Amino acid sequence: MSDRFFLTEPPIGGRAFLLGDEARHCSRVLRAKEGDTIRVFDGRGTEWLASITALARDTVTVALAEPLATESGPRVQLTLAVALPKGERQKWLVEKLTELGTARLVPLVTERGVAEATEGARARLERGVIEACKQCGRNTLMEIAAPATLGQLAARHPTSLRLIAHPGGMPLCDQPIASPGDEMQEIVAAVGPEGGFHPEELALAAAAGFRPVSLGSHILRIETAAIAVASWKTLSLTSS
Amino acid sequence: MSDRFFLTEPPIGGRAFLLGDEARHCSRVLRAKEGDTIRVFDGRGTEWLASITALARDTVTVALAEPLATESGPRVQLTLAVALPKGERQKWLVEKLTELGTARLVPLVTERGVAEATEGARARLERGVIEACKQCGRNTLMEIAAPATLGQLAARHPTSLRLIAHPGGMPLCDQPIASPGDEMQEIVAAVGPEGGFHPEELALAAAAGFRPVSLGSHILRIETAAIAVASWKTLSLTSS
Repeated sequence: MSDRFFLTEPPIGGRAFLLGDEARHCSRVLRAKEGDTIRVFDGRGTEWLASITALARDTVTVALAEPLATESGPRVQLTLAVALPKGERQKWLVEKLTELGTARLVPLVTERGVAEATEGARARLERGVIEACKQCGRNTLMEIAAPATLGQLAARHPTSLRLIAHPGGMPLCDQPIASPGDEMQEIVAAVGPEGGFHPEELALAAAAGFRPVSLGSHILRIETAAIAVASWKTLSLTSS
Repeated sequence: MSDRFFLTEPPIGGRAFLLGDEARHCSRVLRAKEGDTIRVFDGRGTEWLASITALARDTVTVALAEPLATESGPRVQLTLAVALPKGERQKWLVEKLTELGTARLVPLVTERGVAEATEGARARLERGVIEACKQCGRNTLMEIAAPATLGQLAARHPTSLRLIAHPGGMPLCDQPIASPGDEMQEIVAAVGPEGGFHPEELALAAAAGFRPVSLGSHILRIETAAIAVASWKTLSLTSS
């Protein structure tokens, strides 16, 4: 069985539980049996081989073997603050950012944004993160942070390199980032709504130290812009 | 009216026609009238302001003003050869690659591929390219090339830098590409199906001069891998 299961609760003394959807998927969809070996991960960087010791309706109990893998965070961590698109595009965004190793997604509250990050929406996004982690082999969940305006974002990340996607900014590749050997670095990148940032937001961003960066000559959709920044970071800054 | 319309046929002597869907969208959905000004592009790099001179059921005739913009191709052109995913993921792939300025998409024929690039599928992909171009302001269509195996791909692009996405390859960012001042360069990158390339395909690719490149530590879905390569190329190699 090559499926991976997420542990909602941290393991205790070599024992762990699959709960809710994870338990149902394991027992009903895959018809796992006692003694079967599965792979589980805790969303905090660790994956284990685990042996099923008990199956109940909504709980599967497993005994953990030695950890298979422990992920260390990348040297450059990316926080993407995005004016969420609607519906399917939001779902895609979360799946792709998770696959591409983005550390944190912040629903960005903007003047012209169209989607509100309600508690229900956040729960849905978090479910999307778990699904993508299971599929792509990532053991550390992408964090879905509380919604924030640009001002709140700057206050939360006072020492990070702060970028804002805006036409006419410096091309992203000309932006000096970390040089090899630097300490762990955090990049915060803000991606605005379809209509763009309001001039007052841009003024506030400039005052808060966000540097405008351009993502090429075409008008990218929100999710494309965010995925492009995540890809660029993954493929350009995380060498072997 | 800010919509952009695609000219299926090249203009003749300052006159051009919107045909089929483009004509219906203009006349019925947007209820354009004679004398209205619209923007049109030919898919070969040129955009014009145009004045509507006649509206019929399936044809809208326009008189072209001076060109608004003529796109010159980027210095580094990217051809992505992709084992097409199915359904929505295929549609998504085409939209994103078009936005990100990929020059050409080749449906890659592989041992483990799941989607066939039939004539119908190609027509659908081409329609997706036009829709994305209209939205993102791109004036040169992304070409949907005829399907090819890795061997056929190498034969079609004998002088291009040829890359193949495969775990364990050299990180993409460590791959020497063009240096500033170089001539126009073409990169061909192959992205395989969910199950990966067959060992025989990998051997053939090595013999045909494809260099394996790694796209990070997670298992990327087909469309994510392709979009990541396109983003990396757009954001890393096309400075101002």
